[in-house]
Amino acid sequence: MRATTIHAPGDIRVEEVPDPTLELPTDAIVRVVAGCICGSDLWPYRGHNVITPGSTIGHECVGVVEEVGAEVRDFKPGDFVIVPFCHCDNTCAHCRAGAQSVCEHLGFTSSGQAELARVTQADGSLMKTEGMPDKAVIPSLLTLSDVMATGWHAAVAARVAPGSTALVVGDGAVGLCGVLAARQLGAERIIAMSRHESRQQVARKFGATDVVAERGKEGAELVRELTGGVGADAVLECVGTDDAMRTAISVARPGAMVGFVGVPHGVELPVRKMFEKNVGVAGGMAPVRRYLPELLDLTLSGQIEPGLVFDLTLPLDEAPEGYRAMDERRAIKVLLEP
Amino acid sequence: MRATTIHAPGDIRVEEVPDPTLELPTDAIVRVVAGCICGSDLWPYRGHNVITPGSTIGHECVGVVEEVGAEVRDFKPGDFVIVPFCHCDNTCAHCRAGAQSVCEHLGFTSSGQAELARVTQADGSLMKTEGMPDKAVIPSLLTLSDVMATGWHAAVAARVAPGSTALVVGDGAVGLCGVLAARQLGAERIIAMSRHESRQQVARKFGATDVVAERGKEGAELVRELTGGVGADAVLECVGTDDAMRTAISVARPGAMVGFVGVPHGVELPVRKMFEKNVGVAGGMAPVRRYLPELLDLTLSGQIEPGLVFDLTLPLDEAPEGYRAMDERRAIKVLLEP
Repeated sequence: MRATTIHAPGDIRVEEVPDPTLELPTDAIVRVVAGCICGSDLWPYRGHNVITPGSTIGHECVGVVEEVGAEVRDFKPGDFVIVPFCHCDNTCAHCRAGAQSVCEHLGFTSSGQAELARVTQADGSLMKTEGMPDKAVIPSLLTLSDVMATGWHAAVAARVAPGSTALVVGDGAVGLCGVLAARQLGAERIIAMSRHESRQQVARKFGATDVVAERGKEGAELVRELTGGVGADAVLECVGTDDAMRTAISVARPGAMVGFVGVPHGVELPVRKMFEKNVGVAGGMAPVRRYLPELLDLTLSGQIEPGLVFDLTLPLDEAPEGYRAMDERRAIKVLLEP
Repeated sequence: MRATTIHAPGDIRVEEVPDPTLELPTDAIVRVVAGCICGSDLWPYRGHNVITPGSTIGHECVGVVEEVGAEVRDFKPGDFVIVPFCHCDNTCAHCRAGAQSVCEHLGFTSSGQAELARVTQADGSLMKTEGMPDKAVIPSLLTLSDVMATGWHAAVAARVAPGSTALVVGDGAVGLCGVLAARQLGAERIIAMSRHESRQQVARKFGATDVVAERGKEGAELVRELTGGVGADAVLECVGTDDAMRTAISVARPGAMVGFVGVPHGVELPVRKMFEKNVGVAGGMAPVRRYLPELLDLTLSGQIEPGLVFDLTLPLDEAPEGYRAMDERRAIKVLLEP
């Protein structure tokens, strides 16, 4: 099949690789209808993560079931499915407690930017739609495989409550989805920290009531002013850097939670400050399957349209350009069509 | 007045110092009926904190109001009061949100191991009993000024829920009070990590269903076994060291919270592990006044008897021996009577 591969920092290719196959009777193979590039794919692209040269990349996709293993009961070839980036059995103790991203049978999509993807624990992981969805809704469905579920997880971990003031640090696609999640969870005021005009626009569409373009200490000072000196009731940290985390903790009101979902890179949690301010930190990899039923319903009923985070659609073969566009911040998030 | 003072690591004295006075119209002066030594007093005693030679020490006490400032409305000389170690106005935005330990007018008791203590923000901070309480209940009331409220805060921050399995790391008085709090908040199973026979006994009286005497990795392994490999639903970290925090996080089940209340000394939060396991950390200095109404009610009605943490009572003049006894772990917690 054609698949996006990474060979070195900055070296993304689309090339022929062996088709994925059913390795376990609980596997399924999905023909990708739409995949996309994640902010976290930029970590290896920028040389911050170790790279196995030639390995496939991409963990977000939706598609049509091509083939299922002997033990897969709930899906059959032809089903249109959302593929959570983290696969789970949805039956183990961790899954039952809502921590599907720490499932005892955890797996990951490894060729989401390709023609075919292998899904482990298909029955536990996948969700299907009734029939083929409208083409218009596919970008939004695609976000449910990771980015929207991740923004949602940030809002849940930050304990956004009705009537509260939420702050979102990070205006990548996850942060924007965090804004949408905060609105959906009832936040009355949503402050988005965003420097980029195109992202600010999406943030406002998603429910941001205030936008702070300044960063670091200056940005934090403005947020404090906006919140009457008190700080935000709930903070979504959607970047994963030390700067973002420090900003998040510094503008959280005493007693608040910071929900963090950006894979931490160089983050040192200021435990003494957390102690003094009584500000907690929770989050991690999103338990996508936990949120899928609700998010699918919200999406299909048109209550949310998270697909607006995609501002560039390219054919799969132009994946390298997609990476460049995201790396250079010319695009918020890039959808790839095989 | 006679007061306990610290001059250098290990150098505790009881000597004459000037009486505290009303410095602000919102102050009160309390004649101490009972004070006590806190685990956190051992930090400077052991040379881990900076010491101002000759300064008074002790932040936990109950007593009788001696004198009030012109603006104090709710208390008068003769009232028996519980003095939270952290004083608050109980009206500012942080207090109203339940973060009284980050009050805009935060103050601290600085001579709890003495004859008199100054309380700032008396109306916001203090709680009184109707008349003089029985002598038998005074130790329990004394714990409400800090240690019991702190254990309670750990349980609240760890989100102990009815039917859950709670784990308490640390068998100091705070940890023991954490056991009591977890029981009160409905935990069905409470695992106390405790090496000391006398503390194990109190833990069991307070509701511990299991005791793990091993520490570190070995202890964590046993906890995992006890929880069927899953980990604890809620973890109370009641020590404040890096070892204790690492144990706490390692035995928390995915998705769980670690409530931490020990002043962090050398703690480095393993943010990557927290991310991978979806284990959050929250806590800090206990907002004592927030919990006081409920804890006072539970104590006066006999539903809890946190005073059992005191296993040594000494006259104030023997405070140096009290410190030695706690430092050498001959006593769990020492009550001092002026």
